[in-house]
Amino acid sequence: MEEEIRAPRLGDAFGRTLRRCWAAGATPGAAFEIIERDDGHLSAADATRYFTPVADLSELDREAVTLAHGRILDVGTGAGRHALALQQQGKDVVGIDPSPGAVEVARQRGVAAELGSIAHPPEGVGQFDALLLMGNNFGLLQSTQMAKAVLRQLALLARPGALLIGTGADPASSDPDHIAYQDHNRKRGRLPGQIRMRVRSGPLATDWFDYLLPSLDELRQLIRPSPWRLETAHEQGTKYLAVLRLQTG
Amino acid sequence: MEEEIRAPRLGDAFGRTLRRCWAAGATPGAAFEIIERDDGHLSAADATRYFTPVADLSELDREAVTLAHGRILDVGTGAGRHALALQQQGKDVVGIDPSPGAVEVARQRGVAAELGSIAHPPEGVGQFDALLLMGNNFGLLQSTQMAKAVLRQLALLARPGALLIGTGADPASSDPDHIAYQDHNRKRGRLPGQIRMRVRSGPLATDWFDYLLPSLDELRQLIRPSPWRLETAHEQGTKYLAVLRLQTG
Repeated sequence: MEEEIRAPRLGDAFGRTLRRCWAAGATPGAAFEIIERDDGHLSAADATRYFTPVADLSELDREAVTLAHGRILDVGTGAGRHALALQQQGKDVVGIDPSPGAVEVARQRGVAAELGSIAHPPEGVGQFDALLLMGNNFGLLQSTQMAKAVLRQLALLARPGALLIGTGADPASSDPDHIAYQDHNRKRGRLPGQIRMRVRSGPLATDWFDYLLPSLDELRQLIRPSPWRLETAHEQGTKYLAVLRLQTG
Repeated sequence: MEEEIRAPRLGDAFGRTLRRCWAAGATPGAAFEIIERDDGHLSAADATRYFTPVADLSELDREAVTLAHGRILDVGTGAGRHALALQQQGKDVVGIDPSPGAVEVARQRGVAAELGSIAHPPEGVGQFDALLLMGNNFGLLQSTQMAKAVLRQLALLARPGALLIGTGADPASSDPDHIAYQDHNRKRGRLPGQIRMRVRSGPLATDWFDYLLPSLDELRQLIRPSPWRLETAHEQGTKYLAVLRLQTG
């Protein structure tokens, strides 16, 4: 049994997951999102959650869709479930995602999707009246250290007075493995909800990256040194929708 | 990003998966079986497949249940889906599994389950008229090298003239990653369908082990030097049910 165990290949694991789910008609049981955390923890979820039909979006998601106006950027659009909801309301939305597979699937579903991220937006994409961080994508703030820079990069994509609309969840958990991970984070001076992770699918793994689940109070702290101000927040159980506005002048 | 990536803890990952699925009422989307192959390939499947209700068992599975008579051993009973079907027919079945979590769940579901494996059966478990290798558990033959020993160990658990009833599937695949793995196996003199794998769940990983998906023809070859003889085989697409009988004298 002393043979070499090989590592996964670096690649678009997230896109592979979405592609397979879409190829199977977004039917439950066909493709799974597998998340590996840097402590060796592995979890899976049915990939159909990226294909939630517009009619089945959560109340907070629908509220976000209603609040967004003007030219809208859906950051980390995935398979485009929120972009499609915006389009159904006749709104003007561009979806961006760093995953080529996600962009491919979102386009096949009719979304104006482009390859890109907050740090590396599509060339000439311009500025927006509303930026969306749906599906807990306040996580893209990454960490206490990175949040300020990410919020500044988001401001570069925003027109004066633009809204930054996103969802999040309190990371508090009753799972002893999550509690231990969060305690370890605190000891290192990190926010408890910071996760170093990668996505895996079949032979592929993405690069490791930091994703942040801040509580609403932590989010308030993170945006303090940024050009964004919290305008409204809607809490529902452990989940929340936060609406930030870009300060001008 | 140059911090240590930790490995999973050695533990009963399979049992954790079954426990979580059972705790969620065996509802789809609650728990996933994650399989890691030694080439870095990762795949997931909904754990509800271990809880298939008796009425929903496949035709081959139901045939196996019908064929088994007398004192029956269900090898690798998992959550006991086949053992429960046997019990519903008033049959006398003992389930064994090396996973403490599986044994716990199977017992909670009413199966006479014991901790044990082919190599290490429960003490005093005695001998049986029928041994079942359901759910592709001809895989427990492990490899060309190991199959002979495993088939001999199974014979030690069998009464004269006993049946060994199991299911399998031809490993032929159109997935390029599986094809590459099988080619690599052939180059090493292994059967194409041999898989070195471990089960992962949350923070846990089992030990690495070999699991074998022999075609029906390969199974015929594997049992040739054993005390078992193929009595009948029922092929259905790429799947098969094979019934072996212990030769006496």
